[in-house]
Amino acid sequence: MASYMAFTDCSTSAPTRTFLFSRFRPRRGLPSIPPHLLQGLPVAGFRLPSLRITNSPSSFPKAAISTEASAMVIDGKSIAKEIRHEITTEISRMKDEIGVIPGLAVILVGDRKDSATYVRNKKKACESVGVKSYEVCLPEDSTEEEVLKFISGFNDDPEVHGILVQLPLPSHMNEQNILNAVSIEKDVDGFHPLNIGRLAMRGREPLFVPCTPKGCIELLHRCDIDIKGKQAVVIGRSNIVGMPAALLLLREDATVSIVHSRTKNPEEITSQADIIISAVGQPNMVRGSWIKPGAVIIDVGINPVEDATSPRGYRLVGDVCYEEACKIASAVTPVPGGVGPMTIAMLLSNTLSSAKRMHNFQ
Amino acid sequence: MASYMAFTDCSTSAPTRTFLFSRFRPRRGLPSIPPHLLQGLPVAGFRLPSLRITNSPSSFPKAAISTEASAMVIDGKSIAKEIRHEITTEISRMKDEIGVIPGLAVILVGDRKDSATYVRNKKKACESVGVKSYEVCLPEDSTEEEVLKFISGFNDDPEVHGILVQLPLPSHMNEQNILNAVSIEKDVDGFHPLNIGRLAMRGREPLFVPCTPKGCIELLHRCDIDIKGKQAVVIGRSNIVGMPAALLLLREDATVSIVHSRTKNPEEITSQADIIISAVGQPNMVRGSWIKPGAVIIDVGINPVEDATSPRGYRLVGDVCYEEACKIASAVTPVPGGVGPMTIAMLLSNTLSSAKRMHNFQ
Repeated sequence: MASYMAFTDCSTSAPTRTFLFSRFRPRRGLPSIPPHLLQGLPVAGFRLPSLRITNSPSSFPKAAISTEASAMVIDGKSIAKEIRHEITTEISRMKDEIGVIPGLAVILVGDRKDSATYVRNKKKACESVGVKSYEVCLPEDSTEEEVLKFISGFNDDPEVHGILVQLPLPSHMNEQNILNAVSIEKDVDGFHPLNIGRLAMRGREPLFVPCTPKGCIELLHRCDIDIKGKQAVVIGRSNIVGMPAALLLLREDATVSIVHSRTKNPEEITSQADIIISAVGQPNMVRGSWIKPGAVIIDVGINPVEDATSPRGYRLVGDVCYEEACKIASAVTPVPGGVGPMTIAMLLSNTLSSAKRMHNFQ
Repeated sequence: MASYMAFTDCSTSAPTRTFLFSRFRPRRGLPSIPPHLLQGLPVAGFRLPSLRITNSPSSFPKAAISTEASAMVIDGKSIAKEIRHEITTEISRMKDEIGVIPGLAVILVGDRKDSATYVRNKKKACESVGVKSYEVCLPEDSTEEEVLKFISGFNDDPEVHGILVQLPLPSHMNEQNILNAVSIEKDVDGFHPLNIGRLAMRGREPLFVPCTPKGCIELLHRCDIDIKGKQAVVIGRSNIVGMPAALLLLREDATVSIVHSRTKNPEEITSQADIIISAVGQPNMVRGSWIKPGAVIIDVGINPVEDATSPRGYRLVGDVCYEEACKIASAVTPVPGGVGPMTIAMLLSNTLSSAKRMHNFQ
C-alpha cells in the first residue's frame, strides 16, 4: 500500500465520537472466533484464555486497554508462524519423497533501501522454511532487456518454481512488459492478468492468488470466521490488494461491495458490513462510526505516522483507527502483526504449491 | 441469461404492495436523462415530447399506463439502431480508405433451434452494417478436434477479425478448451480470462469488453446518466454479464456492490442503489420495494413466462417487475427492446474495433 508520513492519530487529533456500543455483545449470525486463534486482550478486567497470547503490538494504543475494549485481536504473527511450520513440514516431505526443493527467484533493480529490506526479509523467510532462494541484484541504470534476460533464464530453470520482481522498478522501465514476461506458471505474486481473470471467473481457477489478499482470507479461515452469505466491504480497489480481495470474498460467497476514493459517504456502506478489508494506505481513516458492532476488521494498511516518543521518530498504524475499532468490532487485525506477516507466508505457500504442481506431487 | 418458463407475473400472482412514491420527483444528485433518448410514456395524462417515440414493447403491462407511471423507458432498440448506423458509416469509410471489410466468423455446433436463431440473427445484423460473416455449422457429434481445427483456421485468416463460438456446446466438448483456443486478438465476445483480467485491473485495457455488459454501460452513456460516484448494484455474478458489468461500473468510478444467490436480503442492498443492473434470469424478481425512488434500472433478464393470451403461449419479461419499477425508478429498460438489441450492436462494434486495430485504422 502507498504509505506516507502523517500526523493523523485517531486517539488525539481526531474529533471525539460518541459510541452507542461501548461493549460488544455477540449478535446472531455474526462469526464466532475460536479463542486459541485470538491474541488475548484484557476485556472488562479479565484476560481471555489463549494458546497464543503474544505481546501487544508496539502500536497498541493504551486507551484500548480499558474496560471498554472488547474486540479480539487476530494474531497474524502467530498464524503466519503456524503456516510457515506447515510449509516446512511439506517441503521436508517433498525433499524426502521426490528429492525436489522449491526455489524462489527474486529480482531487485536499483538501490532503494526499503526494497532491499523486503528482499532480505523474503530471503530469510525462504531459508527458515527450506525454500531455496535465488537473488539477482541489478544496478539502477540496467536496461529493460537485461531484466528480461534474467526473467527468461529463470523461466527456463527447472529449479526455480517462483519468480518475483521487486517493485517499484526504476522509472525508465515498463513495469507491465517486465511483469508480463514472468511465466504464468511461476507468477507466485499472482499479478498476471490471466491469473486475475481466472480469479474473477466462475469455474476457472487461478494458478496463484496474490499474497496479501490471500493472507487476509486465510486469516478469516483460520479463525473460523464465516464468509458465506456475509456482507463484506473492501476499501480500496488496487490491483495488488483491493480488487483481488473483493474477487476472493465473492468466490467465498460473500456479498461484496467495493468502496474507493470516488465513493461518497463510504461510512454508510462500511457500517453495514460484517467483514471489512481495508487497503488504502490512509492512517486511521476507518473510524469507529464506520464499523457495525460485532464486525470483523482486516486492516491491510501499514502507514508510518510521526511519533516523537518512538526512537525511530515514527510508528506504524493501519487504515483503521485501532482503539475505536477495538470497542466496536468483534475481531481486529493489529498493525503491525496482523496481515503483514501473512503476506510472506503466502508467498512461501505459493512457491511450495508451484513446485508441487510442476512435479505433480500431492 | 438462464431462462425458463414460469408463471410468475408481478401484475397478477404477486402479493400487492403499497407504494409510498406513486409519482417520481427528480431527486438532487440523481441522473437526468435527455428526453430524446427515452421512449415516451404517458405520464399523468401527457406524453413526453420525444424524437424516438416507439411502440410500447409487447410485454408492456397495461397497469403501468396509468397516472401513476413515471419512469422513462430507455429505448434500447432505438439506441442500438443509432449505433448500427454509426458502425455502417465507419465500415464504409474503412472500405473506401484502406479496402478492408471487417469479418466475423461464427461457429455453431449441433442443431439447437435457439442457437440456430441466434446465429441467423447475428448473420443478418452483420449484413445490415456491412460486416462480412463466415459461418460454420457442425453436426452435434463432431469432435472437439474438428471445432479446434476451424478455430485455428479462423485465427490464421487475415479476413476474419472476430471469432464467436455459439454456446452452449454439446456436452461431450470441453467449453473452456474451445474458448481458450480463440486468439485473444479475435475474441470479440471478450470472454477470454486474459480479457477479463485486464478489465479487472487498473492501468490495463482489455482488447474486448463482453457485449451485453458493454451494452448496459453504453445505454447509460448514451442517456447521459452519470455513473461516477454513484452507488451501483449488480444482481448476478455470471462470467458473461454480472461480473464484467460490475468491473465496468468500477472502471467508471461507481461504488459497486454485487449481490447473488447467496445474498441474504438483497433488497436491502438494491434499495440503496442509484443504478441497478439485474442479470439473473428470474422473472419479475426485482420488485418495486427493491428500488430506490429515482434509480435507473437496467434489466438484462429475458425470461419467457406463460401467457395464454399470446399466440405463442408465452411472453418475455425481465428480471425486474416492470410495472412496479415504472412507478418508482427514474428510468427503466423494457424487455424486450432494452438491453437485448444492444448485445448484437456491441458484437458488431467489437468486430469493427478489432478490424481497425489489426489494420491500425483510426
